[in-house]
Amino acid sequence: MGTVALLRDDELSPEAAEVFAEIRALRGTDYVNNFWRAMAHDPAAMRALWDRLRVVMAPGALDPLVKEMIYVAVSTANGCSYCIHSHTAAARGKGMTPAQHAELLAVIGMAMQTNGLVTGLQVEVDEVFKA
Amino acid sequence: MGTVALLRDDELSPEAAEVFAEIRALRGTDYVNNFWRAMAHDPAAMRALWDRLRVVMAPGALDPLVKEMIYVAVSTANGCSYCIHSHTAAARGKGMTPAQHAELLAVIGMAMQTNGLVTGLQVEVDEVFKA
Amino acid sequence: MGTVALLRDDELSPEAAEVFAEIRALRGTDYVNNFWRAMAHDPAAMRALWDRLRVVMAPGALDPLVKEMIYVAVSTANGCSYCIHSHTAAARGKGMTPAQHAELLAVIGMAMQTNGLVTGLQVEVDEVFKA
Amino acid sequence: MGTVALLRDDELSPEAAEVFAEIRALRGTDYVNNFWRAMAHDPAAMRALWDRLRVVMAPGALDPLVKEMIYVAVSTANGCSYCIHSHTAAARGKGMTPAQHAELLAVIGMAMQTNGLVTGLQVEVDEVFKA
Amino acid sequence: MGTVALLRDDELSPEAAEVFAEIRALRGTDYVNNFWRAMAHDPAAMRALWDRLRVVMAPGALDPLVKEMIYVAVSTANGCSYCIHSHTAAARGKGMTPAQHAELLAVIGMAMQTNGLVTGLQVEVDEVFKA
Amino acid sequence: MGTVALLRDDELSPEAAEVFAEIRALRGTDYVNNFWRAMAHDPAAMRALWDRLRVVMAPGALDPLVKEMIYVAVSTANGCSYCIHSHTAAARGKGMTPAQHAELLAVIGMAMQTNGLVTGLQVEVDEVFKA
Repeated sequence: MGTVALLRDDELSPEAAEVFAEIRALRGTDYVNNFWRAMAHDPAAMRALWDRLRVVMAPGALDPLVKEMIYVAVSTANGCSYCIHSHTAAARGKGMTPAQHAELLAVIGMAMQTNGLVTGLQVEVDEVFKA
Repeated sequence: MGTVALLRDDELSPEAAEVFAEIRALRGTDYVNNFWRAMAHDPAAMRALWDRLRVVMAPGALDPLVKEMIYVAVSTANGCSYCIHSHTAAARGKGMTPAQHAELLAVIGMAMQTNGLVTGLQVEVDEVFKA
Repeated sequence: MGTVALLRDDELSPEAAEVFAEIRALRGTDYVNNFWRAMAHDPAAMRALWDRLRVVMAPGALDPLVKEMIYVAVSTANGCSYCIHSHTAAARGKGMTPAQHAELLAVIGMAMQTNGLVTGLQVEVDEVFKA
Repeated sequence: MGTVALLRDDELSPEAAEVFAEIRALRGTDYVNNFWRAMAHDPAAMRALWDRLRVVMAPGALDPLVKEMIYVAVSTANGCSYCIHSHTAAARGKGMTPAQHAELLAVIGMAMQTNGLVTGLQVEVDEVFKA
Repeated sequence: MGTVALLRDDELSPEAAEVFAEIRALRGTDYVNNFWRAMAHDPAAMRALWDRLRVVMAPGALDPLVKEMIYVAVSTANGCSYCIHSHTAAARGKGMTPAQHAELLAVIGMAMQTNGLVTGLQVEVDEVFKA
Repeated sequence: MGTVALLRDDELSPEAAEVFAEIRALRGTDYVNNFWRAMAHDPAAMRALWDRLRVVMAPGALDPLVKEMIYVAVSTANGCSYCIHSHTAAARGKGMTPAQHAELLAVIGMAMQTNGLVTGLQVEVDEVFKA
């Protein structure tokens, strides 16, 4: 379906197989999703991405569920269907309730609306907002 | 600068003035930002937006700071400069720390990157992600 | 300011000067806006664009004002500040009233909002909508 | 398929059922499209959206067909597949002819093209365009 | 599936049939892809697009493969699934190797990421970058 | 102007100062552009980005000038003004001629146009394009 084939486990390079093993260990499941099977064509890029992604999405000043919801928000504005599905599922896996999902969507919708209004009006940024 | 003039207080219709009064009361400041001064040309639309915005951004299943960060995320993906400035300022007003801001930006950057990769690869959505 | 210099009249190639003359004749003004002064670096592209633009924006099954408003709508969703300014001005030049402008913006805002909601929900297209 | 299930009529809350009844009455058909079946998980948001949508899309300074075409234009620039399908169908229902559809698409394409050119050139906004 | 039907060869107007003949001659194959079958509803627009596309994508200061990769980059940022598929295929037809495809995707991802970071930070353009 | 202050050299953490030194060494100039002065608030993110950016933009299967042009293409579609300026300047620094710049812009414009047309038409992907 995609622009590259999804690689099966027996088609992986050793470097890609190593990342797959880490994904499985971290997530506690044998299932590896299609994104990584497509990325596996470029093991170095996959490694760099996986290493960075773990750092960025780890608990920190923001909790992981908040990070997943921010991820969904960006992916929705960009219209990335796969990303919306995978990170909505990830947010649910981290405890997002139906009420939280509904509020996430409401904020996204509101932001989209005012983005359009502000942009159509070409409102000048208030001095007080500048750092 | 914009596509409509920013209205001064003495140019407001009674309906618009009423919304301005509510904005001032809720925020505890006399300052009303440029967006509302542009919206004031359409008092009915301003009223509808203000009424809905208060509901959507109020504390609920998500806390208001998380909502502001989601707002910044959407606005960034949409490239709405005004919205990024105003909602980053709003998030700071609700307690966003520099570390939280840095993590917000890191998640946005990561989401943008994988949005691009997934979209370029046209990865098919995994069945397990579908509701 | 831009990524290329804006060309003055005395810097134009003969092909570019010819397009400038046509722009002035059609619009009935000596003023040529910055976009064409930037495009003039590539006279062949400018010619192709100008020729096609006149056809597309001419009265047809849709009237020119409606076309300008559609142009503003696309430019707003794409966040093209220059385009929003120039086509809002063009729409005004073709008779857009403040009330029409307000409704244009309201529809843009509503469309942006439901675009975000539908995309976040990943709603499947109804069979009845397909051609 | 989506990130939430589409609700059947017998799964609706009373508040959601009331909106469904209004949709059916206004449109004169029993068919309720998937978007509302997804929105029905959040009856308050659905109610607020439905109430506002009727106002924004009603005849006013712009006629409803023009509004639907503006909706299609925004949805196309945002790449919202569902929205393009549903509002193209709605525009047809309000009388959009094939010739009008072709012109709508031509203007969208032209706007997208010059949005890209202007943005790549980073053309500065002419003073004459500012309100 | 689309918002218009895909026209079969026996449904084409003479003007559309002429463009189809040119597409087949230039590409050396009888296969005409769906985009042109949808565009064929508007033969004049199809003709204008086809004539311009051949000029823009022809060998020039940039080679055709580079042009196809730029096309994929824009289409990916815009989330145009059809365009990504068709121009990735075209790039392959013009010799794009798997290593080149991987680097194309890596640059797209990196650009998306820094686009998000720069936009979220609202970094002011350095004077040295201005033309 | 931005959402964070641009850090001067004497405000940098040791980790950020180290990255600045590497940027200066690689580019052979003392000038460090605003993006890095904004990123310096998060030295770990700056380090990760700088390390990855050097790899992705290095000569490989694609030459660095082509990579810069792809970067400009993505940034243009995303409307990132800063990125367009900085990467157009970088492309010039790597030898992009005015003719190449003009062709880059023409391809971007053409891609934007057909992205809009294809999306508005909701053309189904041809089987032959799928990997």
